[in-house]
Amino acid sequence: MKVVKKIQDAAKDVHTKIIKRQKPSMCIPIRALSNVRYRPKAGYFELKGNNKVRTLTVNTVKSFAQSLRMMAQAKELIETNDIATKREMYYISKNWGDARFNEQPESDTVMDDIEAMFGLHREQLGFVPEEKGGDVAGRLVVIDKDPATGKKLRIDCTKFGSGAYSVPVSVEDLQFETKAKFILAIEVAGMFQRLVKYNFAQQKDCILISMGGVPTRACRRFIRKLSGDKKLPVYVFVDCDPYGICNIYRTLKVGSGNAAHVNKHFCVPHARFLGVTPQDIIDYKLPTHPLKPEDIKRAGDALKNDPFIKHHKPWQDALKQLLKMGVRAEQQALAAHGLDYVVKKYLPEKLRKRKSFLP
Amino acid sequence: MKVVKKIQDAAKDVHTKIIKRQKPSMCIPIRALSNVRYRPKAGYFELKGNNKVRTLTVNTVKSFAQSLRMMAQAKELIETNDIATKREMYYISKNWGDARFNEQPESDTVMDDIEAMFGLHREQLGFVPEEKGGDVAGRLVVIDKDPATGKKLRIDCTKFGSGAYSVPVSVEDLQFETKAKFILAIEVAGMFQRLVKYNFAQQKDCILISMGGVPTRACRRFIRKLSGDKKLPVYVFVDCDPYGICNIYRTLKVGSGNAAHVNKHFCVPHARFLGVTPQDIIDYKLPTHPLKPEDIKRAGDALKNDPFIKHHKPWQDALKQLLKMGVRAEQQALAAHGLDYVVKKYLPEKLRKRKSFLP
Repeated sequence: MKVVKKIQDAAKDVHTKIIKRQKPSMCIPIRALSNVRYRPKAGYFELKGNNKVRTLTVNTVKSFAQSLRMMAQAKELIETNDIATKREMYYISKNWGDARFNEQPESDTVMDDIEAMFGLHREQLGFVPEEKGGDVAGRLVVIDKDPATGKKLRIDCTKFGSGAYSVPVSVEDLQFETKAKFILAIEVAGMFQRLVKYNFAQQKDCILISMGGVPTRACRRFIRKLSGDKKLPVYVFVDCDPYGICNIYRTLKVGSGNAAHVNKHFCVPHARFLGVTPQDIIDYKLPTHPLKPEDIKRAGDALKNDPFIKHHKPWQDALKQLLKMGVRAEQQALAAHGLDYVVKKYLPEKLRKRKSFLP
Repeated sequence: MKVVKKIQDAAKDVHTKIIKRQKPSMCIPIRALSNVRYRPKAGYFELKGNNKVRTLTVNTVKSFAQSLRMMAQAKELIETNDIATKREMYYISKNWGDARFNEQPESDTVMDDIEAMFGLHREQLGFVPEEKGGDVAGRLVVIDKDPATGKKLRIDCTKFGSGAYSVPVSVEDLQFETKAKFILAIEVAGMFQRLVKYNFAQQKDCILISMGGVPTRACRRFIRKLSGDKKLPVYVFVDCDPYGICNIYRTLKVGSGNAAHVNKHFCVPHARFLGVTPQDIIDYKLPTHPLKPEDIKRAGDALKNDPFIKHHKPWQDALKQLLKMGVRAEQQALAAHGLDYVVKKYLPEKLRKRKSFLP
């Protein structure tokens, strides 16, 4: 009930000021790249500490009222153990008379403000993502509750055959049991399915997680929570192109600028890049495709502006090497050497050289 | 081994002709809307029976060789109980010397040809989709095999808590046990999660399947196989807009034109449209958004060209009503009346009037 207490305190503060005929205000951290720093020690983008203050005036009365109503809704969700998606939150406001939101971006902004104000992430307030995402197989038991009876459920992720455990939109109440040695986070569903088929998780004593492209919020939080709770290394296996490196991997590891206020709950600072690396393209003689103009632009931008890339010399070297080679390669390109090459040769070889993984 | 036999027979035919110094040929059904008919009795788009004949000549030698090599690869996949994605198949060809594919669309076309030629769907040939998709919860036990030991596994979809069972890319070898009364196929992951949270599957004795937009091939095949094997009604719960009706629902139920040669394996002809209907917008006083220009175009096209819509008067009336109202509504709009409105009122009321579901 710690979160409810926070909401009550904030509401009481507003109430007290009104009773005293003072102007109530709310203090909200500014969410922008300009208010962000990359602290390698913490391992994710952090807020620098600049705030905006929303004082109740004629101009702010609507957004002020909306913030309070949404806080009240969050309190109700927590107390009734319910959830609401961002879209549902928007629809709920349709009953707020003049305080209703006209478009969802308005209600999303207020939700982000409330997150930032309380230093929480919105799942803790009962607001869950629209999107699921994240399939899991391997040496992991997830402990959850039966929604009907409230009884404990043990979900054994080694027991799903060719299928998988699908991560729920909110993972806050999940617990884990595992003796796995590491987590392997995989970009493409097809590759995940291959590793499941070849029984890779049992062979190497690991947990496989399919991200399906850029991982959703739910998937990132799941990897963060699992690897944090169980102190598991996280190795990332994606395509060798600027998108795989700068979007998928970078976002999973250190987060993004506009979500800096929640990065600490979602980032996986100890993640390491298993591959596919530019050097792998040479070492494993992979079939390639030419870099597209947007690949070249993305890599150039990252070298110039991305605090994470700018901090890590090995990443600058890798991106420059890729630009020089002028090609990209997909993880599935390993199939050119045979369908089982990835499990028989590539992954075992890479896993013997974990210290050389890119940071 | 029926499939292997088919491949061998086709190869033998080519071989015999070559030995006799005749020109070998392959006969492939034409895959286009012009070669498609909608037979309401069968319930899906069917091929009319026009074929193209690919005879071995100087001009066709490359695609002829590619077809034969891909057939050989399919034979190997089946015999070794392996799988390959379309993307992997493309990469495998990189070792075929001059017969290699330059771009994936080329190899996809040959794969479609082989599917059509044998009257099979490509999963039966060992070729699996790139994309997973389809989360399942509720009264269903999936029977699969442990990839390591080959032992039978019973996967109880009531035991996933807030999570779900994620459908594998190939469902051919799955079996099912269920006493559910129907399948509810849901467009949005957020709505699926709400029904899981509120324990709807247990309450109404059903199986919930989250499609996440237009269902993937794997998801459609899963619904088809499960509902066919177990003779279960399928009710579809999507947004009330031309996309939800003409793309998601129509594709699930009768398939699409360019995949007519496999529709019978993927379509769910007995699916019925639970909602959200244009009339629901009025009856349940749902908040709406104006139809976008592409909505209006899509509905107009469907009324004019879509054999399925043209066959069903109630669908023409519904689309016309929607166009007249000029609005669309999402399934999550039900949240405007309270988060539990969908399970307490909307779905129970609709399920009492199953006979009035749109066809």
